[in-house]
Amino acid sequence: MSRQPSPAARCIAVIGGSSAPPEVTRAAETVGRELARAGADLVCGGLGGVMEAACRGAREAGGFTIGILPGEDRREANPWVACAIPTGLGHFRNFLVVRAADGVIALPGASGTLSEAAMARTLGKPVVTVLQATGEWTVPGVLAAGSAVEAVRLILEAIPGRPPHAGGPP
Amino acid sequence: MSRQPSPAARCIAVIGGSSAPPEVTRAAETVGRELARAGADLVCGGLGGVMEAACRGAREAGGFTIGILPGEDRREANPWVACAIPTGLGHFRNFLVVRAADGVIALPGASGTLSEAAMARTLGKPVVTVLQATGEWTVPGVLAAGSAVEAVRLILEAIPGRPPHAGGPP
Amino acid sequence: MSRQPSPAARCIAVIGGSSAPPEVTRAAETVGRELARAGADLVCGGLGGVMEAACRGAREAGGFTIGILPGEDRREANPWVACAIPTGLGHFRNFLVVRAADGVIALPGASGTLSEAAMARTLGKPVVTVLQATGEWTVPGVLAAGSAVEAVRLILEAIPGRPPHAGGPP
Amino acid sequence: MSRQPSPAARCIAVIGGSSAPPEVTRAAETVGRELARAGADLVCGGLGGVMEAACRGAREAGGFTIGILPGEDRREANPWVACAIPTGLGHFRNFLVVRAADGVIALPGASGTLSEAAMARTLGKPVVTVLQATGEWTVPGVLAAGSAVEAVRLILEAIPGRPPHAGGPP
Repeated sequence: MSRQPSPAARCIAVIGGSSAPPEVTRAAETVGRELARAGADLVCGGLGGVMEAACRGAREAGGFTIGILPGEDRREANPWVACAIPTGLGHFRNFLVVRAADGVIALPGASGTLSEAAMARTLGKPVVTVLQATGEWTVPGVLAAGSAVEAVRLILEAIPGRPPHAGGPP
Repeated sequence: MSRQPSPAARCIAVIGGSSAPPEVTRAAETVGRELARAGADLVCGGLGGVMEAACRGAREAGGFTIGILPGEDRREANPWVACAIPTGLGHFRNFLVVRAADGVIALPGASGTLSEAAMARTLGKPVVTVLQATGEWTVPGVLAAGSAVEAVRLILEAIPGRPPHAGGPP
Repeated sequence: MSRQPSPAARCIAVIGGSSAPPEVTRAAETVGRELARAGADLVCGGLGGVMEAACRGAREAGGFTIGILPGEDRREANPWVACAIPTGLGHFRNFLVVRAADGVIALPGASGTLSEAAMARTLGKPVVTVLQATGEWTVPGVLAAGSAVEAVRLILEAIPGRPPHAGGPP
Repeated sequence: MSRQPSPAARCIAVIGGSSAPPEVTRAAETVGRELARAGADLVCGGLGGVMEAACRGAREAGGFTIGILPGEDRREANPWVACAIPTGLGHFRNFLVVRAADGVIALPGASGTLSEAAMARTLGKPVVTVLQATGEWTVPGVLAAGSAVEAVRLILEAIPGRPPHAGGPP
């Protein structure tokens, strides 16, 4: 049984490939779990791969998950999405994912992931990468985490004006 | 304590003015309550007036509410929004509200409400009006309900391919 | 040979059905021609019916025409569109059409036309209807013109802070 | 006197920083000029820096330029934009710039430029960089040109299904 979302909770976008190797999905699942334990909501693009693994990790730890979908049918959401938002906007919905978040954790993906990470920086939102998510790409202000657990700690510290969360879910 | 949202639940948009007279907010609150009792999620623009009254009615009856916000700060959501999605898109977020829904219940509002109702019809989604929501305007396919309770019944019947919900929350 | 567009020129959206009876396309063509004669650019959804007729009238009178397209291929534009903008946004591009304009002339259409007219009012832009474009619908601030020629005169007078154009193309 | 745009012409997005050092604006101006000479239209974000320099180069060589603006006022366009499209979408208009183009030439910029280049690749459009536009970032399918002149040649060759243009403006 998952907890309720809360406008007072921090909301973190988890981005990455819609298909991913086991090393990456394991990291994504850990990210989701740690976000839930820290009381943060998770927003993502709602599909498979990194998105599904992160949602599964979050929900199994009692967290809340939002999927902003490219298509028009909420049933395209992965089964761990608690709240599905179909948009019909295709890849344009990438920008809505980062807009809806206070900060972004990027796992390895393709150019769609990169467009989301770069847009997050354009909007002034903190971005933390795990597993060299963005390859040889570097952008000022993007932090590289050594592990999934560290990524969650770094992103929650980086959100401006909000102290890191002290304990478990509120 | 509200229930969880579910991708399997129907999701109904409630639209109307961001400020509204008591007669209208009472009807909006009833719409929200009846949607919750029927096991449907509620999506709206997340601000005041009709949106706030509908969310309050839904949450107090254990329902789930989504607010797709025009601005960039989730704290602009009314306090009864369970899941707030800031978009930074201004009035363009109206489109996302109706896109995210299976059907629309329209209460009285101004031109923003009308743009949402018309866009819903353009997207082929059923629209039910309460209290002559759209004034002298008529569009084929928009149903006029005699009461808030009837509006919820009509919209759930009008959603294609899904039988009306038989009982209480799932 | 058409003139160049100009950021200094007024830009008027012409909206209406993508298929239309001869009476309506004749009025749309006149609207396009009169806009061109007044030195105003024309923006529309770029497809057939009212949009094509208005573009044809404008181009034949030396005007400039912009088509903001729902699809991803500029070749879906009607042949009288001078500048085609494919968006891939589907019906959502309706809002971009009115956003790009200083004012809107509405000819008869279906709910898509109505959503554009209502969004224009929401954005504070003047709207003039021709041939009872919006049926039984009335919204404060929408002016009804008795003819296509009058519609162009009314919309140019209604644009705030800009005097009606005195003569031919600049 | 500029030529007319044409739906049959290729349309190339030029992206890069809204402020830029002289080396970069010189390259942008050359890109604009060479696009015009090849008969291609130019689309950009419509503001200063790389965008303004590219538009100036294109217009002075008789080309056509489109500016898709972040704000609501067409007067924010640089003076070399022939056709200004205000959107009110802020940074989200980046997406529309690349969507409207057949291919993208990227000059140095910040994260906004990177988000556009990455989104272009996500949409399957060819991207050519000039002056190491994207720093240490590499993405499969992005071509690096040794000069502005070469960039125009490479992008026109890379557009699928359309042979490189044989001569001057049509």
